Amino acid sequence: MSDAPSTTAPSATQALALELLARPSVTPDDHGCQALMIERLARLGFNVERMTIGGIDNFWATRGQHGPVLAFAGHTDVVPSGPEGAWQYPPFAPRIDAEGFLCGRGAADMKGSLAAMVTAVERFVADHPDHAGRIAFLITADEEGPAIHGTRAVVERLRERAEPLDYCIVGEPSSTRTLGDVIKNGRRGSLGGLLRVHGIQGHVAYPHLARNPIHQALAALQALVDEHWDTGNEFFPATSFQISNLHAGTGATNVVPGELEVTFNFRYSTEVTQAGLRERVAALLDAHGLDYQLEWTLNGKPFLTPGGLLLEAARAACEQEAGITPTLSTSGGTSDGRFIATLGTQVIELGPVNATIHQVNERIRAEDLDILSRVYEATLVRLFT
Amino acid sequence: MSDAPSTTAPSATQALALELLARPSVTPDDHGCQALMIERLARLGFNVERMTIGGIDNFWATRGQHGPVLAFAGHTDVVPSGPEGAWQYPPFAPRIDAEGFLCGRGAADMKGSLAAMVTAVERFVADHPDHAGRIAFLITADEEGPAIHGTRAVVERLRERAEPLDYCIVGEPSSTRTLGDVIKNGRRGSLGGLLRVHGIQGHVAYPHLARNPIHQALAALQALVDEHWDTGNEFFPATSFQISNLHAGTGATNVVPGELEVTFNFRYSTEVTQAGLRERVAALLDAHGLDYQLEWTLNGKPFLTPGGLLLEAARAACEQEAGITPTLSTSGGTSDGRFIATLGTQVIELGPVNATIHQVNERIRAEDLDILSRVYEATLVRLFT
Repeated sequence: MSDAPSTTAPSATQALALELLARPSVTPDDHGCQALMIERLARLGFNVERMTIGGIDNFWATRGQHGPVLAFAGHTDVVPSGPEGAWQYPPFAPRIDAEGFLCGRGAADMKGSLAAMVTAVERFVADHPDHAGRIAFLITADEEGPAIHGTRAVVERLRERAEPLDYCIVGEPSSTRTLGDVIKNGRRGSLGGLLRVHGIQGHVAYPHLARNPIHQALAALQALVDEHWDTGNEFFPATSFQISNLHAGTGATNVVPGELEVTFNFRYSTEVTQAGLRERVAALLDAHGLDYQLEWTLNGKPFLTPGGLLLEAARAACEQEAGITPTLSTSGGTSDGRFIATLGTQVIELGPVNATIHQVNERIRAEDLDILSRVYEATLVRLFT
Repeated sequence: MSDAPSTTAPSATQALALELLARPSVTPDDHGCQALMIERLARLGFNVERMTIGGIDNFWATRGQHGPVLAFAGHTDVVPSGPEGAWQYPPFAPRIDAEGFLCGRGAADMKGSLAAMVTAVERFVADHPDHAGRIAFLITADEEGPAIHGTRAVVERLRERAEPLDYCIVGEPSSTRTLGDVIKNGRRGSLGGLLRVHGIQGHVAYPHLARNPIHQALAALQALVDEHWDTGNEFFPATSFQISNLHAGTGATNVVPGELEVTFNFRYSTEVTQAGLRERVAALLDAHGLDYQLEWTLNGKPFLTPGGLLLEAARAACEQEAGITPTLSTSGGTSDGRFIATLGTQVIELGPVNATIHQVNERIRAEDLDILSRVYEATLVRLFT
């Protein structure tokens, strides 16, 4: 493989992506990426509102006064590079290599998408300065981290102001093999549980004086694993239950522990509710006569955009610009879409191929960024002209 | 309660116990206790052999040339005192209090027994200088610790020399309410297992790409808990299985762990063998299709002295001197008896009331030591005159 760089000049989208990638914005540090975007958007007449919340840089920008709002949403922060020596090129010295790949941490997740959004809007505004609807940007630097003071916090401000948000394209890398082959039109919910089963500590030589919480809990845990929570539906796979952590014991081999701690997680479909899952877990534990405490953490409710104007426009734009009919998917982890959807917004995720995200040598085909930019632009054309 | 000390002079046994208790011989430090015993035994004509093994003080002493050998066995080391401020009197400033209790760390476990053994033998030898049989002492300072270089190592030396050891009285505090109410005539075996169940680590959002070792193992663990290993017998309760430690998980709530680690322990009767238990556990795990590794640690085989001259003599001695018919028991943890019994020895444990062992304010009735000394002496009389 040659290390020679590409000899053709980068496109406007590629050039902006290279500028963003050169900034080592390891979460939650924006490192000037948002200033770069804001400069470009301000020049287009966007009204830009910086929202620094809990030390996290975010911004909200809008253009247009009337009609439905379409927001492009994304994040400027990236995950750490891992060992730099394992990279073919330094992770924050981006380049387009001889094979036409844009290389660097964040190329796929998701500075490439950010560049494509900005250039799409630049062309669209140039062609349609008096476009219908309102175009918005909701950008954060806290998606790869705790995600507390990022999109979630911005959404709460929008909710307080009763700002409408009809459509949202999140630039997460949704594609799997070729650009546009998958649009994520929802995500499963994520519900975490921390179960503490209480027993009575004792000496293994005197089991009649102890009550082993491990022994007590096994049947109940088996019942939770065996439970058929739902069968999923057209858009969601069946709800799944996984125990992620299990701990009991003092370390001594001759002591019956007094407590068992179990951490578990549901990834759940729209066929069940988090309240329903909580009730069913408690009922199963009660049925097994356990002495327990249970704490719940709702990481995200499921959301789904089963159809509608945005999805139709984006699908048609993929067919037109990428030559592919995207399939719909709700698989994978959580994304900031979970926060935005709570505003009643139609949310989809559409971005580059995700094969290398969070890995060393993160890369995407540079040409894909131009296609993606045209897909975003075509979506705008379909919705706002 | 008055803190005034007892006004009567201590008996010879009590006096020796006080001398031993004043030495802070926290395991594995003998702190001169054995020298004190050796001085007394040497004066009686014992042939004393010090055996310092791996830094641990032990000794083996014998008196007499012919006939069966009865060994008194015990340890001079004690467990740590714990917070001294929690003690009514300093743990290594022993005394007999106004209520007649001998107080101090090791009073019950087991310096009181050591004193009673020595004075019993002193009186017996004075009365029967040409006694039948051989009297021995097997004393260690490593019973409360790892127990590697203590009785176990001395027993190996005796085995190498083919030294006979017919009878052994271990001075462990066997009594529960009144002196002599319980003789331990055996102990259960202790077999430890460390099970590692292998799965495939992954993301909870993609359970089809992972294999959760917790989920995989639950049914097998339940089967182990439910298994009826045996029903015990006249002398032993049923074999019991206890899981003491259970660990899986990276700490992250969204990761399916790659491995589950389970520590368990059998306390087993003479109705099963450790080899048999190992086979049955492996068969159960295999039947559940687990991918696992299993390591075993045999802490001690079970031993039993169902009857015989020693037990009869000790029982009669308790009736005669303590006015009580002892019941037989094999309950509790392991003791050094497990090592001695491997020589084919009839082993019993007979000592003071164990209510306060390993606790703060360890104490026994001072008068019990005089009774215990007479019980030991009467046992010698029954066997060796």
